[in-house]
Amino acid sequence: MDTVHVFGQARKWILEAGEQIRSSFDKTLNIHTKSDPNDLVTDIDRDTEKFFIENIRAVFPGHRILGEEGFGDKLQDLEGVVWIIDPIDGTMNFIHQQRNFAISIGIYENGKGKIGLVYDIVHNELYHAIAGSGAFLNGKELPKLERAAVKESIVALNISWVLENKRVDHNLLIPLVREARGTRSYGSAALELVYVATGRVNAYISPRLAPWDYAGGALIVEEAGGSVTNLNGGKLDMLNKSSVLAAGPGLHGDILERYLKVGK
Amino acid sequence: MDTVHVFGQARKWILEAGEQIRSSFDKTLNIHTKSDPNDLVTDIDRDTEKFFIENIRAVFPGHRILGEEGFGDKLQDLEGVVWIIDPIDGTMNFIHQQRNFAISIGIYENGKGKIGLVYDIVHNELYHAIAGSGAFLNGKELPKLERAAVKESIVALNISWVLENKRVDHNLLIPLVREARGTRSYGSAALELVYVATGRVNAYISPRLAPWDYAGGALIVEEAGGSVTNLNGGKLDMLNKSSVLAAGPGLHGDILERYLKVGK
Repeated sequence: MDTVHVFGQARKWILEAGEQIRSSFDKTLNIHTKSDPNDLVTDIDRDTEKFFIENIRAVFPGHRILGEEGFGDKLQDLEGVVWIIDPIDGTMNFIHQQRNFAISIGIYENGKGKIGLVYDIVHNELYHAIAGSGAFLNGKELPKLERAAVKESIVALNISWVLENKRVDHNLLIPLVREARGTRSYGSAALELVYVATGRVNAYISPRLAPWDYAGGALIVEEAGGSVTNLNGGKLDMLNKSSVLAAGPGLHGDILERYLKVGK
Repeated sequence: MDTVHVFGQARKWILEAGEQIRSSFDKTLNIHTKSDPNDLVTDIDRDTEKFFIENIRAVFPGHRILGEEGFGDKLQDLEGVVWIIDPIDGTMNFIHQQRNFAISIGIYENGKGKIGLVYDIVHNELYHAIAGSGAFLNGKELPKLERAAVKESIVALNISWVLENKRVDHNLLIPLVREARGTRSYGSAALELVYVATGRVNAYISPRLAPWDYAGGALIVEEAGGSVTNLNGGKLDMLNKSSVLAAGPGLHGDILERYLKVGK
């Protein structure tokens, strides 16, 4: 694919979608609830996904689309060019706060990450990465992440994961949380990933996310010099749910080995 | 005291201090560490407190000052007019993120809260309240908080408080965290209080804070229609450390009674 051309289109559409969302704040949000009250979705969420799909189908008819709201394709593989889109990552924040949410787009070619975009609409912060070319915030390259020890680090993770739960052994995470300098929880995986890329937090952990939550942000972390794997140290799955550990250099291996006991 | 005059001065100084802090971001931060690596303080923190003290002493020589950095007065009581100041609430965020910190000022007269100001400098959001006159964000009155059930609520609290700790029985907080719609942790008590006032979160809990952390924000929550007490349902202590529960109407009592088991 013509990476520069595809990136240019993706950037244009994500900014347009952001502008539409910003201008919708004055309207009443018509909130649909999914099966769980924790999993809210709005008309805006759906409309935004449809906006991307229509544009992609018109300009890049050969590309396939995996979107959170399900209006894209049903994918069995990652052959060719695949756009992985979360129209609003952090829906609960969107509804309660009208901030701390983002549009996330990852563009993969034959399974390899080529382009990542995460747009924090309210703060007008557009993060992007093109494979091999670095990570950027509003067009300015992010400095490469430096090594940090756990005791100097801020770790982003939801409080659920240090309580007994079905996804991860909380007894592995409790010592990490106790030894880290601090913890934060922002409620948007896409934003928490780009916060790792900027160094605002040093690591982000989630035991269960969907590809659209991390497809864009993971590439941005990697291009900033960090690492992103699942909690077993393996490659993220871009077709199915996966756990996620994103962190800067050194820290990523430290957390895997010393706390998650991978390779022991 | 002439509340309107004092408020006008406080507002002017907090905006000026914010401008100084914003302009300092380009300089290298000369970070001193306190006794604990979690408790960082910068030159800017100290300079900002001194800026307030010099101005208050010049214009209101009879007022007394309680400040986090210790350049104010040693207070044994709250007689007269007392300014309670945190020059940078959220120092760890300030250092790691250069955002998500605030200046907090509470002004008390004979122990009663009269004026609260919290300034989120980076987002240029100035929250204020004058007792009996409502709570405001950038001069616009905040709507009164509505009742919310725990299962519809976002609760802000640090992950430490659901792990075994010396301050609070974590077994009381775990059911709350499990039953709430979500949790967040932002690392600034002053901001987490004003987030309660705006409804961005519905409750904020901390088992141990100092008066400068909550003196400003507590009044803003109350003027927005919420309640702020310690975790036993008692009045906050403005001279000594205290626990804090801030929440909207209904929810505050629910958390006290059903989870913290106060009055049972």
